[in-house]
Amino acid sequence: MHNVLLIVEYDGTAYHGFQTQPGLSTIQDELERAVFLITGERSRVSGAGRTDAGVHAVGQVVNFKSHSILAEQTLLRALNAVLPDDIAVKHCAVAGPEFHARFSAKSREYRYSIINREAPSALARAFAHHYRRRLDLDAMQDASCSLVGTRDYASFSRVGTTTTGTTRTVMSATWKREGDWLYFYIEANGFLPQMVRGIVGTLIWVGTGKIDARGFHEIMLARDRRLAGPTAPAKGLCFMSASY
Amino acid sequence: MHNVLLIVEYDGTAYHGFQTQPGLSTIQDELERAVFLITGERSRVSGAGRTDAGVHAVGQVVNFKSHSILAEQTLLRALNAVLPDDIAVKHCAVAGPEFHARFSAKSREYRYSIINREAPSALARAFAHHYRRRLDLDAMQDASCSLVGTRDYASFSRVGTTTTGTTRTVMSATWKREGDWLYFYIEANGFLPQMVRGIVGTLIWVGTGKIDARGFHEIMLARDRRLAGPTAPAKGLCFMSASY
Repeated sequence: MHNVLLIVEYDGTAYHGFQTQPGLSTIQDELERAVFLITGERSRVSGAGRTDAGVHAVGQVVNFKSHSILAEQTLLRALNAVLPDDIAVKHCAVAGPEFHARFSAKSREYRYSIINREAPSALARAFAHHYRRRLDLDAMQDASCSLVGTRDYASFSRVGTTTTGTTRTVMSATWKREGDWLYFYIEANGFLPQMVRGIVGTLIWVGTGKIDARGFHEIMLARDRRLAGPTAPAKGLCFMSASY
Repeated sequence: MHNVLLIVEYDGTAYHGFQTQPGLSTIQDELERAVFLITGERSRVSGAGRTDAGVHAVGQVVNFKSHSILAEQTLLRALNAVLPDDIAVKHCAVAGPEFHARFSAKSREYRYSIINREAPSALARAFAHHYRRRLDLDAMQDASCSLVGTRDYASFSRVGTTTTGTTRTVMSATWKREGDWLYFYIEANGFLPQMVRGIVGTLIWVGTGKIDARGFHEIMLARDRRLAGPTAPAKGLCFMSASY
């Protein structure tokens, strides 16, 4: 029995997120279907990040158990041949028996992309949030610094039950500008549901001057989702990588 | 009467090219429809490059005549509000009365994008040609140098009638690598139908070692489309800019 690791890129536009949901099309379903078509095995595919509906990935890490004797490059080619063209396997390797894409991950990194100008983008319309009003990136970076550390991020996350509490550790939270494009990179040991999008929606408030860095910090401390900004659109979010 | 200049970005996937064709959906049709919706005028929209079906643009230049008194930023916003989201106006300005996007252009630049690796890309699947076999970029660059100058490019272009002959002047033809991505930038005073795609298809022959730089040069000199390589897929091609 092999423990197969894949690195997967996907355009999440057409899917209801990574994780299997009854009656809905998901990335996990497509991967499990592809594995079945190639190996004949009904394996469960686990992913490092349970991305929401409409969220993309360039470096999602998944694993599954298989008896397949196909070489890694052959398996990669075969999976890509049967996957829809909005999901692509970029790398395939055999991992140690204990490796689990989700539970073994020490950290995950996401990127949120904003096009900050009057004109929308035709080519990137599915991969970035178009925001017209000029954003003050320095102010957003200042406020982002208070995210780093071990904190309770309940203010930024979807309200609902969680079995693991609302405290996580953020290692870094950094904005970069390239022309009219703003990129927010955030790495943490784990993320609450819609946490990055809640953070970005609130940092946009900072960028427009509606609140300042102190106000952002106070919203975080309050642990109350009702105080924070709107959840930024899913299409701007992309799962970058997981570290083990 | 104003002469309005627009810089337009589009995802050509859903269109039968730039130029109006009976019964087919084109970029020109969508732009003329948008201008009519905003100004009430049935203006002809002229473009610097008549891109083929499936070809994209990030800097297409167009112009049209209008009596509209809308300010430039207002017109940009209004046009974007009625255009489909795969076409975006990035810039709007009033040009001199003599300006014509097509006839005034001194040169045009195109980019052709290739993903050169085993794994396809999910996010860029509509914007690059996926080519698995390893390409020798140095050999392709060597061969490309013979394109520069005033030459007859009949070998690389769609066979058919042309009113302006098959000689053009190529100012530059340069390959760049970024990881697994190869980009071909070519600037010329004008291009024959499918000329860039014919050149790229033949340069891929060079990249695989099927022909060398001398063979490429001989194909160009022969002025015979049957000798050259296949027309590279439209989706890898993007109109970058026009110079005046």
